[in-house]
Amino acid sequence: MTHPSELPETGCFSSHARLVRSLLREATDATLATLDLNTGHPFASLIQIATLPSAAPCFLISGLAQHTKNLAADPRSSILIDCRRQAKDDAATARVTLVGSAQRLTGPDDVTARERFLSRHPAAEPYAGFGDFSVWSLLLARAHLVAGFGRIRSIAGDDVELGALCECVAEKEAESISQLRNETQTSLDRLATRIIGWDIEGIDMAARNGPIRLAFGEPRLTPEAALAEARSAVQQFIARA
Amino acid sequence: MTHPSELPETGCFSSHARLVRSLLREATDATLATLDLNTGHPFASLIQIATLPSAAPCFLISGLAQHTKNLAADPRSSILIDCRRQAKDDAATARVTLVGSAQRLTGPDDVTARERFLSRHPAAEPYAGFGDFSVWSLLLARAHLVAGFGRIRSIAGDDVELGALCECVAEKEAESISQLRNETQTSLDRLATRIIGWDIEGIDMAARNGPIRLAFGEPRLTPEAALAEARSAVQQFIARA
Repeated sequence: MTHPSELPETGCFSSHARLVRSLLREATDATLATLDLNTGHPFASLIQIATLPSAAPCFLISGLAQHTKNLAADPRSSILIDCRRQAKDDAATARVTLVGSAQRLTGPDDVTARERFLSRHPAAEPYAGFGDFSVWSLLLARAHLVAGFGRIRSIAGDDVELGALCECVAEKEAESISQLRNETQTSLDRLATRIIGWDIEGIDMAARNGPIRLAFGEPRLTPEAALAEARSAVQQFIARA
Repeated sequence: MTHPSELPETGCFSSHARLVRSLLREATDATLATLDLNTGHPFASLIQIATLPSAAPCFLISGLAQHTKNLAADPRSSILIDCRRQAKDDAATARVTLVGSAQRLTGPDDVTARERFLSRHPAAEPYAGFGDFSVWSLLLARAHLVAGFGRIRSIAGDDVELGALCECVAEKEAESISQLRNETQTSLDRLATRIIGWDIEGIDMAARNGPIRLAFGEPRLTPEAALAEARSAVQQFIARA
């Protein structure tokens, strides 16, 4: 990752917005805070997460669980990402609270989110089809980033979510992944690794010990540029392994 | 730890209440959920925790932090303990949400909590004396335990907190720790380990890689019985090391 001081200080590609997205992309689990539908107490619980191409977090939860009942009654919620288990560099001490409204996904959004979630959490596959399980996403109002002791920033939700910016690449996600797999799968098979996700800032891989994020040096805003960068990232990954 | 099926199903020494306390005693950090004082959204943030002799969680936080401002406006809160990083046995997949009201400690309660917190988190010592830092505890209303997939239990706060039961031992905490240190410190010094906490169900030690919990097989309800059990636990620890 480029050093934060070289990046703009505001907007979608500011150092802080990029750090927040990088924490989101690396995370496999998180804490969800909802409002208890009976008492109004905040209720903290554990969830597994994935991201949409926009970087918005998505999660598969059971209608039988307390947090899901709470969200159905009041969608206000937050998600804490604490990457100290997985991360390196900047992220080593960083954590972020994402505040917003949870929404149950339907139609094509549900299909995309479910696919990205299950490729990241294959152990959830056996119960993902149960009628009480549904996929939700957090519509971000703001992010509260703690990048280290006393280094606290508030970032607008619109600056964290990539929105329309990610669509040019997201549209070709399946095609690009398929092309890159054709080029590299023999080497990746040897490493028991598989490409599972794709966005303008990097790719996600499934590996034996959990997902791996290969971040691009800079955002790539066309499918061609993203594919070239992804190809180079995968080749470097194979060379280093 | 005794196998849960051998333990009573209700009350303070039920298998579930004991598992909740065991998660609390092992934890070093947790997620705090508070209510945003401006928007009412639940707000999840990271805290370091310790326990009081009663097993109630306590934490040192800065008045400048968002969660502290939220608690000052509305004490309703919850704490998620997810021990998967530290734990073994039953605790490997278990996590618990503790729901209640946070209270700022004062007087002797503040002294006890601060001492237990700082011996568990010595890195907090440099700023613990700053005027904006205060120690809080959670007055438990209930615990929501997820002991595994689908194994969910709700436990009354009174069954989690040891209350008066812990006092006979807590009163002699300093004296008993001091006696046990005299007996064992030479061996513990060699292991770079130190006894830092004491309650009716076990003792806490500080070690190079973080705190260690030595749990008793059964609760010990007199200072003498607790001291005998602690002595045996420490000797076993030294022998195994």
